Amino acid sequence: MKARVTVSLKPGVLDPQGRAIAHALQGLGFASVRDARVGKVIELEVAPGTTEAEVAEMARRLLANIVIESFRVELEPAPGAP
Amino acid sequence: MKARVTVSLKPGVLDPQGRAIAHALQGLGFASVRDARVGKVIELEVAPGTTEAEVAEMARRLLANIVIESFRVELEPAPGAP
Repeated sequence: MKARVTVSLKPGVLDPQGRAIAHALQGLGFASVRDARVGKVIELEVAPGTTEAEVAEMARRLLANIVIESFRVELEPAPGAP
Repeated sequence: MKARVTVSLKPGVLDPQGRAIAHALQGLGFASVRDARVGKVIELEVAPGTTEAEVAEMARRLLANIVIESFRVELEPAPGAP
């Protein structure tokens, strides 16, 4: 089964990469863009039966820097699972 | 309103960062992890009325390298919008 961990910077933490993307999009003519923030998404292939709590523990221990980042865990049951 | 672009490597493209994450999680004792792949998520603040097609065009022109990456666009209407 798959688990997805989405890691984003907490509000208020400066995001220079996002700022650069917003400026670049505006420079390309996309005037509707006001701001951009960049995060990462880690797609894990895990053994069936892995719980959301286990994946959250992985995020806390390795995937996210919880001082400046927040994370969200989503589990996707394997195709064909009940 | 917000638009989210999720960019991931196409299947078959080698992902050394994902491989390193999978090994590190296994080393930390998370034996249920079989594989990991890393992508990025760009959260855009865009003007109301921006269409999914416009955001997809931003992804094609700047946010994703469509030779090796695929992307998905999601629009979130502003809170309180109909």
